[in-house]
Amino acid sequence: MKQAFSIIVAAGVALLAALSLGCALAQADPLPSWTDGTAKAAIVDFVARATTPGSADHVAPAERVAVFDNDGTLWAEKPVYFQFMFAIDRVRALAAQNPEWKVKQPFKAAIEGDVDTLAASGEKGLVELIMATHTGVTTEAFGETVADWIAAARHPRFERPYTELAYRPMLELLALLRANGFKTYIVSGGGIEFMRVWTDRVYGVPPEQVIGSSIVTRFDVENGKPVLVREDKIDFVDDKAGKPVGIHKFIGRRPIFAFGNSDGDLQMLQWTAAGDGPRFMGLVHHTDAEREWAYDRDSAVGRLDKALDEARAKGWTVIDMKRDWKRVFAFEPQ
Amino acid sequence: MKQAFSIIVAAGVALLAALSLGCALAQADPLPSWTDGTAKAAIVDFVARATTPGSADHVAPAERVAVFDNDGTLWAEKPVYFQFMFAIDRVRALAAQNPEWKVKQPFKAAIEGDVDTLAASGEKGLVELIMATHTGVTTEAFGETVADWIAAARHPRFERPYTELAYRPMLELLALLRANGFKTYIVSGGGIEFMRVWTDRVYGVPPEQVIGSSIVTRFDVENGKPVLVREDKIDFVDDKAGKPVGIHKFIGRRPIFAFGNSDGDLQMLQWTAAGDGPRFMGLVHHTDAEREWAYDRDSAVGRLDKALDEARAKGWTVIDMKRDWKRVFAFEPQ
Repeated sequence: MKQAFSIIVAAGVALLAALSLGCALAQADPLPSWTDGTAKAAIVDFVARATTPGSADHVAPAERVAVFDNDGTLWAEKPVYFQFMFAIDRVRALAAQNPEWKVKQPFKAAIEGDVDTLAASGEKGLVELIMATHTGVTTEAFGETVADWIAAARHPRFERPYTELAYRPMLELLALLRANGFKTYIVSGGGIEFMRVWTDRVYGVPPEQVIGSSIVTRFDVENGKPVLVREDKIDFVDDKAGKPVGIHKFIGRRPIFAFGNSDGDLQMLQWTAAGDGPRFMGLVHHTDAEREWAYDRDSAVGRLDKALDEARAKGWTVIDMKRDWKRVFAFEPQ
Repeated sequence: MKQAFSIIVAAGVALLAALSLGCALAQADPLPSWTDGTAKAAIVDFVARATTPGSADHVAPAERVAVFDNDGTLWAEKPVYFQFMFAIDRVRALAAQNPEWKVKQPFKAAIEGDVDTLAASGEKGLVELIMATHTGVTTEAFGETVADWIAAARHPRFERPYTELAYRPMLELLALLRANGFKTYIVSGGGIEFMRVWTDRVYGVPPEQVIGSSIVTRFDVENGKPVLVREDKIDFVDDKAGKPVGIHKFIGRRPIFAFGNSDGDLQMLQWTAAGDGPRFMGLVHHTDAEREWAYDRDSAVGRLDKALDEARAKGWTVIDMKRDWKRVFAFEPQ
C-alpha cells in the first residue's frame, strides 16, 4: 500500500499545484499596460458582468461580439494612415511604368514624398492613389505585395516596422476579451485586403474577422487557372454610416462591445449602444504627443469631435492615452 | 489505507469507463444516413487525411474551411426555391395595400398561386417579387417576418415546416466536419438575411458563417433609434461567378472542402479545387423522385449540367441521392 499512498500524495501535491497556479492566473493582471484608473476598471467590470453565469448582465458566448476600429484604435495613424504610406510606396515602385505621373497630382506629390500636399488631397487623393496602385492584379498578387511591404517598410518617426506601432494596451484588451469567450473583429475604413495579410499575426484577428473597405473583384479563368481580379471600382466603404452596415453584412449580429477613436466610428458606437443588455462603448483619445501623438477636433486624420461630445454626454469610456496607458508600444523601455 | 485503496479502484474504474466510452465514440458511424459506398468513403478518407497530424495532407485547423450551397444541397428546392414561396406569401399578405398587383405580373400569379407562371418568370420575376416584398423595412422587422413565416409555413408536398426538408445526411456531414475542427459556411444564392434567421438552429451554422445575396442597407436614425433600412437595390448576387467573390470577401481564405448541387456552384467548386493541398469537391445529384425529386440538366430550378460534366471529368464526388443516402429527411420512417 506504500506505493498507493505515494500516488495519492503525489496526486494531492499536483492538485495543490494546479489550484495555486489557477489562483495565480486568476490574480495576474490581464491589462498590465493600463494604469489603475476608471477606464481599466470599466473594462474589467464589463467583462466580469458579461461572463459571470447567473449575472443579470450575463451574455451567451455566441453573442459576445467585440468590434474594433483599426487606424488610431489598434495601431497608430500618423503622419497619415499607413495604407496611404503603402500607396505612396506603390506609386514610386510603379512610376517608371507610368511616366505621366511625374506631372499629375496626387501622383507627383507621392513620388516627391510631399506628404502635406498628399494630406491636403484628402480622401479623394487617397482613393485616386489606391485605384491606380491596388487594382488590375489578382487578389493573390496583391496580397504578396502587401506582405512584402509590411515586412520591409519603416515608420518615418519611429524607424520600425509599422506593425510595431500596434498599441500594447489594446493587444492586451483583445487577448482579455478572447480569453473570456469574445469574438474580436476589426471594423475599419481601411482596405480589407490590405489588413487581412497581417492582422492574425499582429492582433490575433483572423481574416474572416476583418471587415473593411473593398473594391470589386471579378472571377476569371487565366490560362486554365481560376483567379480573382481586383477591378478599378469601389465595392464598399466601411466608414461612418458604413460601419454598422458592414457589421450587419459580415457578422449579422449586433456587437456588445465597440472601440473606436474618431468620428468615423460614431455610427458603429451608436449601433452598438442601441442594443439590449450590457454594452461597452470606448474611444481612444490621443493625448500623448511625447510617446505617440496628441490630436482630436482639428486633425485631418482621425478627427475626433462629434464622437467625443457624444461619448461624454452618454458616459461612454474615453481612454486618455497619456493618463490611462502605462506603455503605448511594446518597444518602449519599461 | 482501505479508503485510499477504494479511491484508487474507483479512479481506475472511472478511467476504464472513460476509455471505453472514448472507443465507443471513435467507432460510432458519424454518417449513419449514408450507405457504405464510394461517396461516404471519400468523405471519411478526406477528413482523416486533413486532420491526422504528420499526414502529408494535414491541414492546420484555421485553414479547415468548408463551404456549402444551401438550396438543393442542404435542404430541398422544389417546387421552387423556398425563399420564392416566402416572397409569394408576402405578396399575398401585402396585396390589400397594393391593389395594382391584382392585374400586374408576376404579382398576379403570386396572388393566384400560379406557380407555373411564376417559375416561367424566372430570376427576373423572383427579383421583382423580392424587391417589392423584402425592402423598405428595417433589418429587425424583416428578420421577424422571416421568423414568423418559417415557423408557420408548410411545404406543399410534405405538409411540414420547410426547415424539416433539411437533408439528414448533410446535417451529419456538417457535424462530422465541425467535430474535426472545420468551420462550416453556407455560400448561397439565397438572401443572406432570409437564411441567417434559422441556419443556426437548423444546420448549426451561425449568422457570421452565412454568405448570401444581399440588398443594400442604409444606416438611419428613426425617432432617436439607430436602424438599418433595407433599400430597393441589389447589393451583391452570391451565385455562379459571384460565389468565389463572396467567399473571398467574407472569409478571406480559400476553402478546402466545397459542396454544391447545380451549375450555380461550378465556380465555387473550381475555386476550391484550384488551391494547394488536399481538396474535396462534392455535388448532390437529385436522383430520387420517390423520396425527394429527380432532376438535373433540364430543370429550371437547380439545373445541373456543366458542373456534372466537370465533376465527372475531374473526379469530384457526385452523390447519387437514391444510392448514397439511406434516409433523406429526418421525418422518414426508419
